[in-house]
Amino acid sequence: MSTMSIQDYYPDDVAHCYGCGRLNDEGLHIRSFWDGEQTICRLRPRPCHTAVPGYVYGGLIASLIDCHGTGSAALAAYRAQGREPGTDPPLRFLTASLHVDYLEPTPLDSELEARGTIREVKGRKVVTDISVRAGGRETARGRVTAVQAPEGFIEKLAAGGTRAGS
Amino acid sequence: MSTMSIQDYYPDDVAHCYGCGRLNDEGLHIRSFWDGEQTICRLRPRPCHTAVPGYVYGGLIASLIDCHGTGSAALAAYRAQGREPGTDPPLRFLTASLHVDYLEPTPLDSELEARGTIREVKGRKVVTDISVRAGGRETARGRVTAVQAPEGFIEKLAAGGTRAGS
Repeated sequence: MSTMSIQDYYPDDVAHCYGCGRLNDEGLHIRSFWDGEQTICRLRPRPCHTAVPGYVYGGLIASLIDCHGTGSAALAAYRAQGREPGTDPPLRFLTASLHVDYLEPTPLDSELEARGTIREVKGRKVVTDISVRAGGRETARGRVTAVQAPEGFIEKLAAGGTRAGS
Repeated sequence: MSTMSIQDYYPDDVAHCYGCGRLNDEGLHIRSFWDGEQTICRLRPRPCHTAVPGYVYGGLIASLIDCHGTGSAALAAYRAQGREPGTDPPLRFLTASLHVDYLEPTPLDSELEARGTIREVKGRKVVTDISVRAGGRETARGRVTAVQAPEGFIEKLAAGGTRAGS
């Protein structure tokens, strides 16, 4: 498995996401990799990420699925184009929709593992199903529909002239 | 509008949620109220809650919809039972599923307003549709299906013997 996550290749101007931006000092630093035909991300919750004592709050699971979904979308799009992350033009995806089913409580003292299965790569859209496991059990399942940021998005953003999504 | 949110009535043992627990020092302190037939919650994002510079990351929107959804469910369940929050037995809801459609980017410098419309109160289940507005525009829409925590949940939790959800 590569030591570089897809988020390590995000251009600096779009690397501040609280969920997955390497340049957000306070954020979660979610990092997504290929693992064979699936994508994978591991995250250790902080003690404050509690729902009720001992269990992870739903918003963290949603954030994990969201950002691993956009990361998985970028990984899939590069692969579909037959090129490596880091080659131009850079690809950055935004979330169009997010669905999460909470199957059972997620223990707070475990590392979370999110595995993505790419369901569709069509035009600028990528759909990824994501399974979250903790303590040896699947505790949540989600689906992320992500769309590629428009051409010039990064450049306009740097100039302060664009409204931009997740 | 009451100055007491539904979360102010959550028993201490289930008031530690990072999203909406009044006893979580690091959390978001989401608070939900009735506003006529709708429920309402206002939240000011922190500067770190960025997606790309100037806009709110999707995980915060998901957390807001999630916790306002479980809060709205509790409000609706007390009302359906013809009693006030603070009367026994206490009602606490957990998230079964969460859906979010991101309609457009959400500006980071605005207060977010989430409005809930109760769609269904049936047995132990409550379904709430939630609209998120910022800067005068609707930027996201969501649906939360919440289920009432089982009887004895709070007591078992205090004794360390229950696995518990969002």
